[in-house]
Amino acid sequence: MAFLNPMETFKSVTARLEALSDGIFGIAATLLVLEVKVPDLPEKYTQAEMVTALLKVFPSFLSFFISFLTILIYWVSHDSMTRILVKSNYRLTWLNLLLLFWIALIPFPTHFLSEYPTDLVAILTYGIVLLLTGITANVTVYYMFFIRPDLVKHSITHDTRVDLFRKYLMGPILYVVAIGLAFVHIYITLALYVLIPVIFFIPVNQEQILKEMGLEK
Amino acid sequence: MAFLNPMETFKSVTARLEALSDGIFGIAATLLVLEVKVPDLPEKYTQAEMVTALLKVFPSFLSFFISFLTILIYWVSHDSMTRILVKSNYRLTWLNLLLLFWIALIPFPTHFLSEYPTDLVAILTYGIVLLLTGITANVTVYYMFFIRPDLVKHSITHDTRVDLFRKYLMGPILYVVAIGLAFVHIYITLALYVLIPVIFFIPVNQEQILKEMGLEK
Amino acid sequence: MAFLNPMETFKSVTARLEALSDGIFGIAATLLVLEVKVPDLPEKYTQAEMVTALLKVFPSFLSFFISFLTILIYWVSHDSMTRILVKSNYRLTWLNLLLLFWIALIPFPTHFLSEYPTDLVAILTYGIVLLLTGITANVTVYYMFFIRPDLVKHSITHDTRVDLFRKYLMGPILYVVAIGLAFVHIYITLALYVLIPVIFFIPVNQEQILKEMGLEK
Amino acid sequence: MAFLNPMETFKSVTARLEALSDGIFGIAATLLVLEVKVPDLPEKYTQAEMVTALLKVFPSFLSFFISFLTILIYWVSHDSMTRILVKSNYRLTWLNLLLLFWIALIPFPTHFLSEYPTDLVAILTYGIVLLLTGITANVTVYYMFFIRPDLVKHSITHDTRVDLFRKYLMGPILYVVAIGLAFVHIYITLALYVLIPVIFFIPVNQEQILKEMGLEK
Repeated sequence: MAFLNPMETFKSVTARLEALSDGIFGIAATLLVLEVKVPDLPEKYTQAEMVTALLKVFPSFLSFFISFLTILIYWVSHDSMTRILVKSNYRLTWLNLLLLFWIALIPFPTHFLSEYPTDLVAILTYGIVLLLTGITANVTVYYMFFIRPDLVKHSITHDTRVDLFRKYLMGPILYVVAIGLAFVHIYITLALYVLIPVIFFIPVNQEQILKEMGLEK
Repeated sequence: MAFLNPMETFKSVTARLEALSDGIFGIAATLLVLEVKVPDLPEKYTQAEMVTALLKVFPSFLSFFISFLTILIYWVSHDSMTRILVKSNYRLTWLNLLLLFWIALIPFPTHFLSEYPTDLVAILTYGIVLLLTGITANVTVYYMFFIRPDLVKHSITHDTRVDLFRKYLMGPILYVVAIGLAFVHIYITLALYVLIPVIFFIPVNQEQILKEMGLEK
Repeated sequence: MAFLNPMETFKSVTARLEALSDGIFGIAATLLVLEVKVPDLPEKYTQAEMVTALLKVFPSFLSFFISFLTILIYWVSHDSMTRILVKSNYRLTWLNLLLLFWIALIPFPTHFLSEYPTDLVAILTYGIVLLLTGITANVTVYYMFFIRPDLVKHSITHDTRVDLFRKYLMGPILYVVAIGLAFVHIYITLALYVLIPVIFFIPVNQEQILKEMGLEK
Repeated sequence: MAFLNPMETFKSVTARLEALSDGIFGIAATLLVLEVKVPDLPEKYTQAEMVTALLKVFPSFLSFFISFLTILIYWVSHDSMTRILVKSNYRLTWLNLLLLFWIALIPFPTHFLSEYPTDLVAILTYGIVLLLTGITANVTVYYMFFIRPDLVKHSITHDTRVDLFRKYLMGPILYVVAIGLAFVHIYITLALYVLIPVIFFIPVNQEQILKEMGLEK
């Protein structure tokens, strides 16, 4: 039988989970564009009115950019994490699917925030969904690294694991801070929403993480 | 020629069917978020009105969660089933595509139920679509396990097959019960709609199934 | 270098084209569900009004079913065709991408027909798009089989190729007939739109085709 | 461990990046069809009114066609580029993800232009997004070819790289010209928007590029 389907032994343990994840990450990121609405003007309009109308689209464009960037940052981490996986189990699959649930939900708070960019409820909703996404990602990493360390390559030492986990923990902590500061001044929170993905994006930081994980030379 | 395209012999018999399935599962699950609508408020509104408006979004959020969970549970079963497949045929492909039809349809009854959560017609429509999805999944498993047992790994014994099939049969039976009870009291049905995916999700049960199928140690 | 990336030699010549195709087939099929609209009723309504409203959804449900079936039939043929491919070239890639263009367009005539099921223009639009899809598929098969016969496995004899091509040609011919009959009576055309995918679906016919192609025992 | 997951060593360095890219290319291309709107007519209408209404859909159909073609041309280049990649790094991944950002955004300017086909602001928006897409693609190719030449197969000589890069550079240059000419006459720009993808599509040119890259015989 090994002869009939030799691929089976070769197939990555998480091949299909990766395929489903790539699908959901891709769709959630691309669906966001549906919320960047074309300006709606009357039959007769001046060029100045069009420019004003287009400028009003800016918050939804910025939301699109920030959420797209956030989803792709999660995708890059997800890609790194599955690469160091030696095997998987049912619990890890469901933790991963819970992460996909939050990723798939992101278009909702993004749309909400782009419609009401200065509303406290909209700002809190966005922060809470992003916080829950971050917590799920951290629980998943914690499970892989410390509860079932055998799922991960031996070459990733305990020290590297602790170090990586601490770096990932920055995400939820920053969203807690952003949410808290919303009660002081919403513009601080909005600035943090833009800054957080930018911080995580900074190449130096990630190159180092990847080096520690032996994924990049 | 074997040299020019050696992958051919290695490629999993259902590689592309799995890719299409992962695509449709992923899209159906993610499209559900389009039905979680952002509150629509007049130019001037109070914070209390916003909170009330957001609470009205709750049924559609709950529908999103339940349908997302249901689709992912089918995906997990689908993944397990294709792993124990040694070869495939045309009939099995079409049974699988029929399952994808119901999966792709799920956003409709989900949206219907989230718009009319207490309407009998909406409740019955949701139940019937989920029942037909379950029946299709069961017919597919029955076909693989008992009509063409050669399609499945020898290591999955007849006893395990009977056992697994009985467990899967719980799905359609529970939806028949839920639909019947809608004529007694719709809230019992709604509670069952939330409970059924939760029952199927319970890890213990699935871990055991996977162990019997030799997919997890 | 062969050592650094041995997969390269192994990778199917059309691996990514298949991935893109599976994505577009899957999305086009699943997007159709967005056109099955939930009934829109006033605040106060009777159960009879809801049933009537739901029955009005039936044409769009039928359109969803027929288009979904049509797209999946093309997918099954596409899957069979890529399996007998030994290598590919730029021209075949673009013929394939043109087919994907028509597949991606199908939601438009489907939606159009479900909104105006008895309108001649809508009926013709649907037929023409499906006809052009069929012609593109036939040109692609003709190119693979007769203009660049070296792209296809040697084991598929000239006789089998002629035979297969004739069977595929049935598609465009039937749509030409359906379009012509629209000027006699639109209900004949509508009945044919439902019948054509059903004819192509009939398993016996396909099992035989697959046997001739050596893809099924 | 190599025994437990031998696939790891074999797996293409950009397997998942390709999967995510195929997903986003496919979704962005297919989402465009949602902008080809079904004519909206009153209860009573004449056949002539329907034909007029359908003709009004033509700009959005043309936009769909042009954007679909543009996205697929990028996909074909992307496919060629990943085939000559020997290894990847974090910077190349992010350049690729930035390209996906512009690809995912394309439905917005496409929709905008199909709603206001003769508006200068809409015409400029479309051109700028397509220009930024082209610049990102060129920066990515420049990075691969000249800054980190070790990422690309040795067999692609420096001369071929210079030659290829010059050909790709035609894209952004043509969009700059098209944008500039919008201030002379918008119809020249619109004609160029249709012509640019057609120029890039011309098979002779691409066949030659692929030959130089050793991807086609």
